[in-house]
Amino acid sequence: MSDTLTDLPAIAALRARLADLPGPALLAAGAIGAGHGHDETGNLECLPALVLRPSCTEEVSRMLAACHDLDLKVVVQGGRTGLSNGATPRAGEVALSLDRMTRLDPVDPVSGSIVAEAGVSLQRVQEAAEAAGLSFGVDIGARGTATVGGICATNAGGLNVIRHGMTRAHVISLEVVLADGRVMGHTRSLAKDNSGPDLKQLFIGSEGILGVITRVCLALRPAPGPAATFFGSAPGIAAARALLARLRRDAPAALLAFEIIDRPLFDRITTAGHVSPIAPGAVQVLVELEEGADPDHLGAVLMEAIEAGELEDATLAASGSQRAALWALREACAEAVFSLTAPVGFDIGLPTAAMEAFLHDARTGLEAALPGIGIYVFGHLGDGNLHYIVDTDQPDTVAQIVFGALAAHGGAISAEHGLGREKAKYLPLVRNAAELDVLRGLKQLLDPRGILNPGRVLP
Amino acid sequence: MSDTLTDLPAIAALRARLADLPGPALLAAGAIGAGHGHDETGNLECLPALVLRPSCTEEVSRMLAACHDLDLKVVVQGGRTGLSNGATPRAGEVALSLDRMTRLDPVDPVSGSIVAEAGVSLQRVQEAAEAAGLSFGVDIGARGTATVGGICATNAGGLNVIRHGMTRAHVISLEVVLADGRVMGHTRSLAKDNSGPDLKQLFIGSEGILGVITRVCLALRPAPGPAATFFGSAPGIAAARALLARLRRDAPAALLAFEIIDRPLFDRITTAGHVSPIAPGAVQVLVELEEGADPDHLGAVLMEAIEAGELEDATLAASGSQRAALWALREACAEAVFSLTAPVGFDIGLPTAAMEAFLHDARTGLEAALPGIGIYVFGHLGDGNLHYIVDTDQPDTVAQIVFGALAAHGGAISAEHGLGREKAKYLPLVRNAAELDVLRGLKQLLDPRGILNPGRVLP
Repeated sequence: MSDTLTDLPAIAALRARLADLPGPALLAAGAIGAGHGHDETGNLECLPALVLRPSCTEEVSRMLAACHDLDLKVVVQGGRTGLSNGATPRAGEVALSLDRMTRLDPVDPVSGSIVAEAGVSLQRVQEAAEAAGLSFGVDIGARGTATVGGICATNAGGLNVIRHGMTRAHVISLEVVLADGRVMGHTRSLAKDNSGPDLKQLFIGSEGILGVITRVCLALRPAPGPAATFFGSAPGIAAARALLARLRRDAPAALLAFEIIDRPLFDRITTAGHVSPIAPGAVQVLVELEEGADPDHLGAVLMEAIEAGELEDATLAASGSQRAALWALREACAEAVFSLTAPVGFDIGLPTAAMEAFLHDARTGLEAALPGIGIYVFGHLGDGNLHYIVDTDQPDTVAQIVFGALAAHGGAISAEHGLGREKAKYLPLVRNAAELDVLRGLKQLLDPRGILNPGRVLP
Repeated sequence: MSDTLTDLPAIAALRARLADLPGPALLAAGAIGAGHGHDETGNLECLPALVLRPSCTEEVSRMLAACHDLDLKVVVQGGRTGLSNGATPRAGEVALSLDRMTRLDPVDPVSGSIVAEAGVSLQRVQEAAEAAGLSFGVDIGARGTATVGGICATNAGGLNVIRHGMTRAHVISLEVVLADGRVMGHTRSLAKDNSGPDLKQLFIGSEGILGVITRVCLALRPAPGPAATFFGSAPGIAAARALLARLRRDAPAALLAFEIIDRPLFDRITTAGHVSPIAPGAVQVLVELEEGADPDHLGAVLMEAIEAGELEDATLAASGSQRAALWALREACAEAVFSLTAPVGFDIGLPTAAMEAFLHDARTGLEAALPGIGIYVFGHLGDGNLHYIVDTDQPDTVAQIVFGALAAHGGAISAEHGLGREKAKYLPLVRNAAELDVLRGLKQLLDPRGILNPGRVLP
């Protein structure tokens, strides 16, 4: 399909308009690698009609202006590690890949910031920060491939959100190219700017439907010291929630992570060969506190939690290798999920107060519709974000039930992965008519011809 | 003027439409206190034609829908502690005061959050957090009067921005009423929600021109422990910047505050009777580090800073009372400014790298235009936010020079106070044509008749 599409007059006209750009700036059919055909979801439908590979903001501007004039639809591609089919091309779309924009400026040690082009990997930012005695507050498993543009456009979360916030909290400023090629914003390290509404916020988490982020100034933080880590078992979600409240109030240092693994998933992890350091319970918790947590104080708090029935068993990491072993249990969740027959994953956000009620209603609904169905839950209880996995060959039925329960309990249909094409149709479940109107109005304002990532986010 | 305006047919029609609301919901001419005529800037022009005082979101919605239908302009009022004339009525405007919406829900200890109506004071939020063993990360001098709605609508900053961020960083969710009365958003404690663009960000810091914030869910943090505080003298801004970079990299705990006071202002403070604990330098620095800072480690870092010429003298607070005495010097800045003949204050943001160049250019420009002019500088160097005070009877000339230098160095014409009516006309200095178009488009999208805070923010 893509071969014939590249012969469309509009594609030919685009190539003519950009003919003066150097060779690597355009990839035509035949030269396009399969990677440009999908994101981490892996659902390749077709290759893009053309891949545009700008080397700088000015080229992004020229390319988008041309696509706008020619009414060509554009799919924006970063590291393509997304999990919601946002970067997967549809027939006839031109891909705009930021993979050649990889300039990373030196760390500014005074303001504690760094400027990166959109194609720089998250890991390079982390390493540059560390070399300057600082750190970057966002970390996700795909750090080596995920890009600065991608984590900003999707407002990536990760393991330390409870303490440091999502990517939005780390963006000082950004530059963006609108659908018609106009350039907005800057990458100065202006920590405070209340000169009118903060337009950059529109583009963070908008998944490329409102503009293309080209460069970003990111805030860095002090390098973290050694954390205090423990692994425990709780008799249920309610107990884990009570433990969370206790730690927020009484723990000797701030929470860096509060992760859970439910019993069905944990049993798969131990069956696969991992050794549990404690007697498992209905819910396993992995908790990390910031440096400076006095071990005696923490031990006393954990004893109180055991006496209150919030914990059944717990072990504190006494060394870096023990800490790594505890985190290996959490990281084993992914492989345990992939070992299921047909895992369908939901990345849900909930007010922590609604957690038990949602889990009850979703399970009841699923078991009524699909008796014997396998349900596995793990994730970031500390920020109300669970990965809810169902082993099923009926993903649509399951999605209706899960999202229905979620909407009834005031949840988010995506806590961190975004909507892409996979979840766009469910947006009306969690946004009212006024909100959908405003979203459509924003899209119309910033991309009047609808050329940017069409079909993503907005139903 | 306001007396005749209350007789306008539209005002009479508004009163008729809201006649079923209980007495306190409307204040007519004669019952309107002078406080409704100005904000902290103090420039009373006239009283509002009517004061609308809703008790709940539904009443806000009814009132705005009526004003929208009748094409009545509305000025939104919170605690009226703003410093840019945003809440000061213009002739014929109806005031919408949130002062009766003062419901504060109990702290949710599990998610670490609290829901407040717009009229709740910042101090009540702080006290509720403290009673639950937590804290709220925003603090400003006007805490007793400033409201939750106001600090969100203006994205208030304050003393701890370097560590905890501005108000935006503490808003989990919010409910807003659009100009035509439609209600958007919610106040659930959804820490993570990537279900499409985050619309609430539009309203934080928009100074009421896009919608009226009615209720907010705020994030709370762990209660702070005892901080480490020192006061020192530096030979100049460049040295203070070098010290800032050193502390970001080498300090034994994260920076909570990095404040400066220049010599001319500090001399006024000591002349007024405050005693300096050190030999003053060109720039005084007040620095605070998070709890857990090892004093020996900090002392060693300060010795290195002295050897490097970044500090000339320094004293570490050894007790809570010593710490309070050091902060009293910083807090004396306000009274020292008010004691000037005709102080004109600018609340400017700059990339820290551009700080010296801006200060040089602004001083050179001012002294050329107005020989012998008095210039005083203090503020939050750690987040690039200075209060730049000029003692002058020619505020417009001074503003042109200061904002001109600021724009040339990539600064913000308001770092934290907002634009209101005072600085709206300078917005084109720091926003390009595309940005101004988008801002006007947002205003048109959300307030098509231009009834909300007209003349504020947008030129």
